[in-house]
Amino acid sequence: MIRSALLLDYVTSLFGAMGCEYNDARVIAEVLVEAELRGIKDHGIKRISAYHMLAKLGRINVQPEVKVVYQTPTTATVDGDNCFGPIVAKKSMSLAIEKARTTGTGWIAVRGSNHFGVGAYYAKMALENDMVGVVMSNTSPLVAPVNGTMKMLGTNPISVAVPALRFPPLVYDFSTAPTTLGNLEAQARKGERIPKGLVQDMMGESSVDPATVSRGGAILPLGGDEAHGGHKGFCIASLVDIFCALFSGANFGPFVPPEVAHLPQTAAQQAKGVGHFFGAIRVDAFRPAQEFKAAVDSWIETFSNATGKEGTRGIQMAGEIERRLRERQLKLGIRLSSTQLKEINRVAKNLGKERIPYSPDAEGEA
Amino acid sequence: MIRSALLLDYVTSLFGAMGCEYNDARVIAEVLVEAELRGIKDHGIKRISAYHMLAKLGRINVQPEVKVVYQTPTTATVDGDNCFGPIVAKKSMSLAIEKARTTGTGWIAVRGSNHFGVGAYYAKMALENDMVGVVMSNTSPLVAPVNGTMKMLGTNPISVAVPALRFPPLVYDFSTAPTTLGNLEAQARKGERIPKGLVQDMMGESSVDPATVSRGGAILPLGGDEAHGGHKGFCIASLVDIFCALFSGANFGPFVPPEVAHLPQTAAQQAKGVGHFFGAIRVDAFRPAQEFKAAVDSWIETFSNATGKEGTRGIQMAGEIERRLRERQLKLGIRLSSTQLKEINRVAKNLGKERIPYSPDAEGEA
Repeated sequence: MIRSALLLDYVTSLFGAMGCEYNDARVIAEVLVEAELRGIKDHGIKRISAYHMLAKLGRINVQPEVKVVYQTPTTATVDGDNCFGPIVAKKSMSLAIEKARTTGTGWIAVRGSNHFGVGAYYAKMALENDMVGVVMSNTSPLVAPVNGTMKMLGTNPISVAVPALRFPPLVYDFSTAPTTLGNLEAQARKGERIPKGLVQDMMGESSVDPATVSRGGAILPLGGDEAHGGHKGFCIASLVDIFCALFSGANFGPFVPPEVAHLPQTAAQQAKGVGHFFGAIRVDAFRPAQEFKAAVDSWIETFSNATGKEGTRGIQMAGEIERRLRERQLKLGIRLSSTQLKEINRVAKNLGKERIPYSPDAEGEA
Repeated sequence: MIRSALLLDYVTSLFGAMGCEYNDARVIAEVLVEAELRGIKDHGIKRISAYHMLAKLGRINVQPEVKVVYQTPTTATVDGDNCFGPIVAKKSMSLAIEKARTTGTGWIAVRGSNHFGVGAYYAKMALENDMVGVVMSNTSPLVAPVNGTMKMLGTNPISVAVPALRFPPLVYDFSTAPTTLGNLEAQARKGERIPKGLVQDMMGESSVDPATVSRGGAILPLGGDEAHGGHKGFCIASLVDIFCALFSGANFGPFVPPEVAHLPQTAAQQAKGVGHFFGAIRVDAFRPAQEFKAAVDSWIETFSNATGKEGTRGIQMAGEIERRLRERQLKLGIRLSSTQLKEINRVAKNLGKERIPYSPDAEGEA
């Protein structure tokens, strides 16, 4: 186990050793540790080695000059100068909140960014200001259009945080595709077959082989085929791409740069980078804040009390599982797998830093 | 066949006879005819008799006082006073555009409304102002949460219009559920079975019977079950509900009033009504308008040219099919089915108005 505060310091030191300013390194570490705390392991500590490789190859700029390149009282376009995503993402969400404070709503489009980690980190920043936070990112292509055979869109996540009164806030954070590359890779390693309606092969034919996506196939849009509303899922992922890339001038759709160093990147992809879109909405821009938050409570109560299906865990509120896990891990510490430890220690060695101060816990793992 | 201009005048006269002011009647007619022109028959002429019944029973207020009840420079909350949806919807989208003109973006939350027809009508209003238009509505409950057995959310549509330069605009307009009640009813009438993953019975078990939704079952969220990302579909529909109802104070989720008179309505449902959310975003709040629109062109070109799957109609741009049909019907006239004609003439007779001036076309139908 490792205490999250200690992990935070340690990860900060690694990014410092990669050449980042202290404040930048701290933000990256916060976002990666937040993912780990929320149990979104795919965007947590696991990313350190991928981030390191990208920096080492010069595919990410560790000394970026993040700049507002265009703005109005309610909006701005920010260029991340090809930085680690969390740096420009946190700055942009702060700017959205600042604008919302004076004008009711703030909207920021971002270009020149990279993988920004777990969107909930930024969306939640709005909550303490009695604002709704909205976060989107485009990601490198994995999803085919309905009737298409090529990977054209990413799993393009959306995160929205909504403040409540007596209840914990609603924190939505989901990709707009039915599955993720991380899931598919894990299933492929285990040699599992997956249900129909998640992936297709390079000819566009339905497949139950999770490895097909890395052999020219693609993930289907949310919904799957047209009979199951896959065209609607494709609309949603398209809108995320349009909001993230066309307002900001980032790369769109098939041109979004990869998140990992083992996939090649073109000069054009580096130039315009990954795109994000951030929004902050003062809830009292529409009605008194107490009234809004009481209505959210009533919404949560209604949905929590709805009858669940026999034999299932019932209806979950957005972000509830993640919030409980986060609280537990803040108290007890974070457990990392032996693979995670090996990877992080490999990066540390490469950077001339000490090993992670991790204590195998009672169960003796790692 | 009937010319759309003639149909517009005729439908306007029917709503006038129901007690609406001329301008209100005109807007309702415009929205219903627009649905017919775009081929979205479920929100077209077919609705006249449902609208008429609701008005006759006093469940809709034909002399509403639509009011802005709360506002800031970039936002407002509008109360529709239980009007026909199109009246408050068009006013609110105009207000969003007006606010965006001065501050970059405009956002309007609406309560006290009813069925607003085809969302694309309002989203498209933003286009001629070089703005992106965003439209959402909650609708009466049909969709169960993942692991739930009750109808808790509507098919909650989203419409977004995005201006292009050389190409026609992108016009998204989709419900956030995998199928619609209209489809299911048509399939039930034909005695068809439907694919798995669209509906469940009252115990929450998967069903292939389209009639199950009217016997205590529910439509599944977009994605279907959890293995296919149904929880993500439920997140999206929830967010539409939250934006439409909690900012405005409209009824949410299971309390959204029905669109048809044969379903009962509680006093509480009438009080707060259906909710909508409208947004207008100046594209030059983020970058010069020509630049933005050229980027949209490039997006359209890239997606249109992507390889389609053998034996399919290939990749469709949002709103393209509807735009072509609209242009054809504007030129040649609109064909109505004998059922549509019978229904509209029944309403006309009831209101003491003449029959629809419809000429059976060459194919001799109706």
